[in-house]
Amino acid sequence: MSARDAILVEDIQHSPAQSLHDRLSASRRLSTELARPLSDEDQVVQANDDASPTKWHLAHTTWFFEAFVLKPFLEGYRLFDERFEYCFNSYYESVGARQPRGKRGLLTRPRADEVRAYREHVDAALERLCERGLEPWAAELIELGINHEQQHQELLLTDVLSLFASEPLKPAYARANPGVAVAEVAPMDWVSFDGGILPVGHAGDGFAYDNEGPRHDQLVRPFKLANRCATNSEWLAFIQDGGYSTPKLWLADGWATVTAQGWTAPLYWEEADGGFMQMSLQGFRPLDPAAPVSHVSYYEADAFARFAGYRLPSEFEWEVAAGGLPLKGHTLGAGHLRPLRADAGAGLKQIYGDVWEWTGSAYLPYPGFKAAPGAVGEYNGKFMCNQFVLRGGSCATPEGHIRKTYRNFFYPYQRWQFMGLRLASDA
Amino acid sequence: MSARDAILVEDIQHSPAQSLHDRLSASRRLSTELARPLSDEDQVVQANDDASPTKWHLAHTTWFFEAFVLKPFLEGYRLFDERFEYCFNSYYESVGARQPRGKRGLLTRPRADEVRAYREHVDAALERLCERGLEPWAAELIELGINHEQQHQELLLTDVLSLFASEPLKPAYARANPGVAVAEVAPMDWVSFDGGILPVGHAGDGFAYDNEGPRHDQLVRPFKLANRCATNSEWLAFIQDGGYSTPKLWLADGWATVTAQGWTAPLYWEEADGGFMQMSLQGFRPLDPAAPVSHVSYYEADAFARFAGYRLPSEFEWEVAAGGLPLKGHTLGAGHLRPLRADAGAGLKQIYGDVWEWTGSAYLPYPGFKAAPGAVGEYNGKFMCNQFVLRGGSCATPEGHIRKTYRNFFYPYQRWQFMGLRLASDA
Amino acid sequence: MSARDAILVEDIQHSPAQSLHDRLSASRRLSTELARPLSDEDQVVQANDDASPTKWHLAHTTWFFEAFVLKPFLEGYRLFDERFEYCFNSYYESVGARQPRGKRGLLTRPRADEVRAYREHVDAALERLCERGLEPWAAELIELGINHEQQHQELLLTDVLSLFASEPLKPAYARANPGVAVAEVAPMDWVSFDGGILPVGHAGDGFAYDNEGPRHDQLVRPFKLANRCATNSEWLAFIQDGGYSTPKLWLADGWATVTAQGWTAPLYWEEADGGFMQMSLQGFRPLDPAAPVSHVSYYEADAFARFAGYRLPSEFEWEVAAGGLPLKGHTLGAGHLRPLRADAGAGLKQIYGDVWEWTGSAYLPYPGFKAAPGAVGEYNGKFMCNQFVLRGGSCATPEGHIRKTYRNFFYPYQRWQFMGLRLASDA
Amino acid sequence: MSARDAILVEDIQHSPAQSLHDRLSASRRLSTELARPLSDEDQVVQANDDASPTKWHLAHTTWFFEAFVLKPFLEGYRLFDERFEYCFNSYYESVGARQPRGKRGLLTRPRADEVRAYREHVDAALERLCERGLEPWAAELIELGINHEQQHQELLLTDVLSLFASEPLKPAYARANPGVAVAEVAPMDWVSFDGGILPVGHAGDGFAYDNEGPRHDQLVRPFKLANRCATNSEWLAFIQDGGYSTPKLWLADGWATVTAQGWTAPLYWEEADGGFMQMSLQGFRPLDPAAPVSHVSYYEADAFARFAGYRLPSEFEWEVAAGGLPLKGHTLGAGHLRPLRADAGAGLKQIYGDVWEWTGSAYLPYPGFKAAPGAVGEYNGKFMCNQFVLRGGSCATPEGHIRKTYRNFFYPYQRWQFMGLRLASDA
Repeated sequence: MSARDAILVEDIQHSPAQSLHDRLSASRRLSTELARPLSDEDQVVQANDDASPTKWHLAHTTWFFEAFVLKPFLEGYRLFDERFEYCFNSYYESVGARQPRGKRGLLTRPRADEVRAYREHVDAALERLCERGLEPWAAELIELGINHEQQHQELLLTDVLSLFASEPLKPAYARANPGVAVAEVAPMDWVSFDGGILPVGHAGDGFAYDNEGPRHDQLVRPFKLANRCATNSEWLAFIQDGGYSTPKLWLADGWATVTAQGWTAPLYWEEADGGFMQMSLQGFRPLDPAAPVSHVSYYEADAFARFAGYRLPSEFEWEVAAGGLPLKGHTLGAGHLRPLRADAGAGLKQIYGDVWEWTGSAYLPYPGFKAAPGAVGEYNGKFMCNQFVLRGGSCATPEGHIRKTYRNFFYPYQRWQFMGLRLASDA
Repeated sequence: MSARDAILVEDIQHSPAQSLHDRLSASRRLSTELARPLSDEDQVVQANDDASPTKWHLAHTTWFFEAFVLKPFLEGYRLFDERFEYCFNSYYESVGARQPRGKRGLLTRPRADEVRAYREHVDAALERLCERGLEPWAAELIELGINHEQQHQELLLTDVLSLFASEPLKPAYARANPGVAVAEVAPMDWVSFDGGILPVGHAGDGFAYDNEGPRHDQLVRPFKLANRCATNSEWLAFIQDGGYSTPKLWLADGWATVTAQGWTAPLYWEEADGGFMQMSLQGFRPLDPAAPVSHVSYYEADAFARFAGYRLPSEFEWEVAAGGLPLKGHTLGAGHLRPLRADAGAGLKQIYGDVWEWTGSAYLPYPGFKAAPGAVGEYNGKFMCNQFVLRGGSCATPEGHIRKTYRNFFYPYQRWQFMGLRLASDA
Repeated sequence: MSARDAILVEDIQHSPAQSLHDRLSASRRLSTELARPLSDEDQVVQANDDASPTKWHLAHTTWFFEAFVLKPFLEGYRLFDERFEYCFNSYYESVGARQPRGKRGLLTRPRADEVRAYREHVDAALERLCERGLEPWAAELIELGINHEQQHQELLLTDVLSLFASEPLKPAYARANPGVAVAEVAPMDWVSFDGGILPVGHAGDGFAYDNEGPRHDQLVRPFKLANRCATNSEWLAFIQDGGYSTPKLWLADGWATVTAQGWTAPLYWEEADGGFMQMSLQGFRPLDPAAPVSHVSYYEADAFARFAGYRLPSEFEWEVAAGGLPLKGHTLGAGHLRPLRADAGAGLKQIYGDVWEWTGSAYLPYPGFKAAPGAVGEYNGKFMCNQFVLRGGSCATPEGHIRKTYRNFFYPYQRWQFMGLRLASDA
Repeated sequence: MSARDAILVEDIQHSPAQSLHDRLSASRRLSTELARPLSDEDQVVQANDDASPTKWHLAHTTWFFEAFVLKPFLEGYRLFDERFEYCFNSYYESVGARQPRGKRGLLTRPRADEVRAYREHVDAALERLCERGLEPWAAELIELGINHEQQHQELLLTDVLSLFASEPLKPAYARANPGVAVAEVAPMDWVSFDGGILPVGHAGDGFAYDNEGPRHDQLVRPFKLANRCATNSEWLAFIQDGGYSTPKLWLADGWATVTAQGWTAPLYWEEADGGFMQMSLQGFRPLDPAAPVSHVSYYEADAFARFAGYRLPSEFEWEVAAGGLPLKGHTLGAGHLRPLRADAGAGLKQIYGDVWEWTGSAYLPYPGFKAAPGAVGEYNGKFMCNQFVLRGGSCATPEGHIRKTYRNFFYPYQRWQFMGLRLASDA
C-alpha cells in the first residue's frame, strides 16, 4: 500500500457518528481495498496452516453475512452458489462440513473474479436488507459481521506478510511511508497504579464480543506498567546476552519450542552484515531499533520479561491502566502498516495500535460467561483453552475495531501477528 | 498388592508426630514396597512418553537426594556412580545433560539390583547425615526430597497401570481388596458457599511447594459444589447421549483431540458384552457404576460439565470449600488403589483421595510468586503454561502428601493419572 | 481443453522430418498452450508434495534451457533475472541452492505474466542461438531440453488433475471429446513370445535418455502378454472380491500402505449411487468400465495381478513385445486426455499411450551405465533406487516423446500419473 | 560372551552328518545360550522399531514350532498358553491378530522365566514328535523352523548391540577374544571372472528358502570382484574426503536420508580424540582400521563404491564368484562376534562371515518363483519390494545357516545388521 493508498484507507474508516449501514459499507469496501495491491495469484496461496489466502478471507467474511444475516433475515434471498458454504465456512461445526483448514490454499476455484462477484451479490443483498429496515437481532448480527470482517482484515495483512516472507523474492505489499520520523526513543519509564476491587469487562454500551463480558469485579493489587512497549534494541540486548540459549529464562514448553524450531530471534528477523534485517509489509528492511519489538511469541515475551527482571501484566492490570485513555494510536487507519516508535512525553504510550501486547493471563471465560446461542456462539467460547490474552490492537487493526475490553487470544507459540509486549511489575 | 500388602503400606505411613528422619525412612521404604510386586522386567519398561519405568522412579528419587542433599551437605560423601547423574536427572537444566525423556526405557543398565544397591548407599548416607544433625537448609531439602519421592510414588503406580493396560495379558498389580462394600450411591447433591475476599494459598506452616504461595486474597463469588465426584454411571449417560460425537459440547482443542485420538470413553475403558470393563491396578474388571469416573482429560471433564449444564470449579472455589475439612480420604494408605464410592451422609465427600479433581483454573503463578533459587527452582515454576490445576489427591497419593493448598497440574489432554471431576455452579 | 484445442495441439506436434529448431519451437509453444485453459490462480498452487504448480513447470523448463544451453553457449546472453535460479532449479545439487520442493506453491512472485515474459526472453535467445548454428554439444542439450520439457508437459497435466481433484468444485480442465465411441471391449486375450538372448536398450540412433542404455543383451524366457491393458471393469471385480481387504494378495509394504492410507479403490474414484464416478481432466464423470484402469500404484497393480493369477511383465518382456510395433497410440496429440478403450482386432493393443504400464522391474542401471558428466548427469541416475519402471507412455505424453526403450519410473506407492498395467505370464 | 562361552557355542554347532533331530536340539540350545549373558531386564526391552527384545525372539521362534509343527502334527498337543499366539506371532496375516511390531517391548508379561518354561514345554513336545517319527512335511517344517530360529539368533545379537549402543553405560555383551591377531592388511586386489549363461539359485539339494529358487540361468558379463571387503580405513578416507557432504556421490534417496538423519559415519562410530571409537558386542572400543567396515546402509555402500570409482556387484556376480569356495568363514561359531581382518594370501577372502555384503540387486522374485502355500508362504515373497539383496552371512550368522544361494534382504536405509560391502567392476 503506498502513501496514497494509506489515505484512501483513512477515508473509509468509520466515524462514531456513522450509521450501521455506512459502517457496513465502509468495512466491506476496506477488505476490497486491502486486496487491491495483490494479484490473483497472491490472493489464492496459503502461506502456512495458521494463515489463510486473501481470497478465502474475502469470501469467508462474505459467507458469514450470507449464512447468518441474509439467509435468516432477507426474504427471497438467493444463494450466490450453494457450494460456497462448504468452501468458506471456517469452523462452525453447527453449520456443517467444510474445506479443511490446511487446504484452503487449494481453492483456485471459485476464481478471484467469482469471489469478487460473490462479494457484490452479497453487498447488494445487504443493501436491500438495510433499506427495508433491520430487526434488532439482524442489526446485532450485522454488527458482529462487521467486527468479524475487521478481524479478517488484520489476518489478511498478517497472512500476506507471512506469504511474502516465505518467498525468495521478498516482495513488498506497500511502499514505506516516507513521513515517519526517526528520532531517538527515551528510556523506558514506569507508571504506577493503585489496586482495589475494580470492575472489568464490557459494560453493555456499544458492540463487544461475548468473551468481553460479563462485566465483573476483579481484585487487582497495586502495580506498575512500562510507559511504552519493549523495543527492538532492548530485544537485541536479550539476544546478545544469550537469551535464546539460556534455558532457565524459559518456560519448559517455551524452551522445547525454541530448541525444536531453532528460534534465535523474532519471526521475520534475518541476520545480515552483523546487524538485523526484518521482513515487513514494506519489504525487506533494516530493523528500526527504537520501534516496538514485534512477531514474538508468548514464550519469548515471558522469557524476555524474566530476563529483564519483570513480568507481563495481567489482562486486568492492562485494562485498568488503559482506563480512560483515548482510543487513539497507530492502528490500520494510520496507514503505516508497521509498529512505530513511541512519542515523547509523559504517560502511557502505545496502549492502542502498533503491536498487540501479550498478557500473562490465560484466555478463560469470565465469571458467569455464557456463549451466545446458535452457530455464532462458536465464535469465542470454544477457544478458551491453551491460549493467552493479548490487548490493545496493532498497526493492522482496523479503525473502530479495538476497545479497552477487547480480548484477543493466540497460542503461546504463535508469532505471525503483530505481537509484542509491555513490561509490568508489582508496585 | 494384596490386602496383606495394603496393611504393610499402612504401617509405614507417617503420623504427624514423626520426626523428619522417621518420615524420610518411611518414605524411602514405601518406594521399595511399591516396587516389590513387580519383576525386574516390569520395572525397566517405559509404557509411553509420559510415563517412566519403575526402576527409573526408584533411581531418580535417589539421585535427587544425592544431588541436592548429600553432595552439598555430607562432607566426604562418595558418589555411588558418577554416570548416574546422566541416567537419572529428569529435567534440571541447571544440573546438566541427561537421558532423553522418551528413552528412559532403554536403561537396562544399571540393573535393578544395582539400583537397589544405589538406594541403600544413599539411604545409609542420609542416615549418617541425619545423625550428625541437619542444618535448616538441608532439612528443608530433605523435606522437599520426601515430597518429591511421594509424587514419584504416585507416578510409579499410574505408570505401572499404563504399562499393564498396554499388555495383552492385562496383568494385575495387586489383588482386589474384598472388603469394599457395593451399596448404591445417592444422587448428587449440592453444597453452597458464600463468596467474599478470601485468603488462599499456603500460610507458611509446614511444608508446601513454592507454587502454593504466596498466600493471598482472592475475590470469590457465591458458588455451589457437588457433594461428591461425578460417577461412572453419570459418565455412561454422557456416552449414551452421544457426548463423544457432539462437537458443540467441546472446546475446539478438545474436539480436535477426540477426533484425532478416536476417544469414545475414558482411558482404560473397554466395551465388552454391551457393558464396559476397566483396566485397573487390580487387573481387568467390570466397571463399578457408582465409583467416581477416573482417567478423563480436562477436555472430557469440561465437555461433561457443559453436557450436565454446569461447569468445573475454579481452584479457589475448591480450596475455599475444602476449608476446614479433615485431611482424610481414600489415598494410598487406604490400600484400595482405586477410587471408591462416596459414603452416605451429609456434606462434601471425596474431597481428598479417590481422584484428582480437574478445576477450570489454568496453572499460573500466584501474585508475587518467585521460584526458589538454584536447581530446585526448576521444580514448579517452569511448567506454568498450558496446564490446568487439579486438586485433592487420589487413591494413589501417599498419605501425608496432600494438602488443602496443593496444586497438581497436567496438560488438558492427559488422562493416565487418577483424574476425575466434581461439578460446580454459580450460586 | 476443448475439442478445438485438441486440434491445435495436434498441429504443433512434431513430425520426424522436423528440424531441431522447429521441434524446439513447437515444444515450447505446446507448454504455453497447455497452460492456456488455466487462470493465473490455477497455475500458482501446488496440489501436493509430489506435484508442482503449472507456473513452476513453465518456468523450470525455461530455466533448464537458460542454465544448460544459453549460459554456456550463447555469448553475451543476459540472464532474465538471476534470482530465478534459486526459484526454478528442481534438484540439480551441482547448480546450487533452490526453493524447497514442497514450497514451490508459495511462489506467487514472479507473477504468471513475468514467467510468460521469461519464456519469451529465453525463446528469443534460443532463436538467436539456433540461427547462429549449433555446436553438437549444444544441439544435444537442446534435444535434452525438449525432452525434459515434454516430461514436464505430462506432469503439468497430471498435477492439474491432482489439484482439480482436491477442489470441492471439481472443475474440468477440458471439455470431453464427444467423438469417442462407447462399444464393448472384447475379453482379454494373450499374445505369446519366444525367449532368447535378446538385445534391449537404446541403439544410439536418435535421442534417448542415458538410462536407456547401454544397449545390451538380456536373457528372456518365453512369455505371454495380455493383448490390452487391464480395464476398469476388471478392477471392479477385484474390488468386489475384496481385493483391498485381503492381505495375502499384497506385498507387505503395499498392505501397510493400503491400511495407512485407507485405499479402497484407485485414486480419483468415488463411490456414488452404487457405482463409481471418476475425477478426470474433463471433470467428474461416470467411470467407463471398458477403459484401462488408471491411477493405480505398483502395489495395487501387483496385488491385482496376483488376484488374477498372473504377474506383471518385466521391462524387458515389454520391450521385446513392443518390438517393431508402430509408435502410435492415444498420446497427448490424440487430444483425448484420458485413456480410451482398446480397439477391436488381433495383436497387442494400447502399447503406446493411454496409460503407463507398471512392470515388475526395479529401476536400476543397465550393465555398464554411466551417468552423463556435469549437472545433466543428475537427470536419471541418482533416482535408481526404490522405484519401478513403467513403459509405453500415456494419454498425457506428448507426441514424439515416447520410445520402445523409454524407461519411466515412479515409487511403488505413487498413483497420480496415468498409470495402469498389462498382465503377463510365463509361456 | 566370553572366550569360554565361544567354545560352548562352537560345541553346539551342527556338523553336516547330524540328524535333523540333533540339529533341532542344538539350534534350540544355541538360542538359550545366546540369551545367557543377558539379565531379564536386558531381554525385555525393544531398542527401536526395527529391533525386537531378546525374550520376544526366544518366544517367537518357539511359537513358530508350536503353530506350524506341533499343532498340525503332534496329536494331543496341548498349547502352553493360547494367548501367546497374539503375543508372539510376527507378521503372519493368515494366522491372526498380533502384538504390534513397535510394541513388542511392552511385553513384560509373560515373564522371562515363563518364556523359558514355554521353550521347555515346546522342546519336550518336539522331542516326542521326533521320537514318533516324522512325516516328510513335518520334517520340512522343522527344517524351516531351525533356519527361522537361526535368523532370529542373528537378529537377537544385532538387536542387543542396538540396545546396548543406546545405553549411556555402553555395556559389553561379551568379552573380547584376546586371540585375534592385529597384523596389517594387504591392499585390495582384484579377482576376475568370465561371464556366460550361468545357472544360479538353489539346486534342490538340502534346505533352502523358497526365495532362492527356482534355479535358473542368468546372463552374466565378465566382471572383477575385490578380493576382500572394504575396510574401516578405506571408509575413513571416504569420510575425510567429504564423502558424507558431497551430494553427487549419492542416490537422491540416500542424500535425503543422510541430511535428514545427520549421518556422518557408519552406525556405532563415535568421534573421540581425533579418532573413532566403535560400539560393539564387546563394548565401546577403538576402531580397527583393517577390519571390514560394518553397519553401513545400502545408500552408504553405493556412495562409497561411486567414490572409489567402482560399483557394487550384482547378486549373481557374487554367487558365481562364490562358486565352489568352501563354506567357511568368521560366522557365529568362530566366536568373535565382530568382523575380522582378512587373511593374507591369494583368492577371494571373507566371502562367508564377517559382514553381509550389499549387492546392487533389488530383492525381486526369481523367474517362476511361487511362494509356498499356507502361512509359511508369507515368509519371503511378500517382502520382494523396496529392499536390496545381501550375500554371504556375517560374524553373527549361526554355523550351517549360510549358503552360496542365500539371499538376505534389507531396506536401503537400514544399517543395524553387520552390513558391509565388496567392490566390483566390469572386466
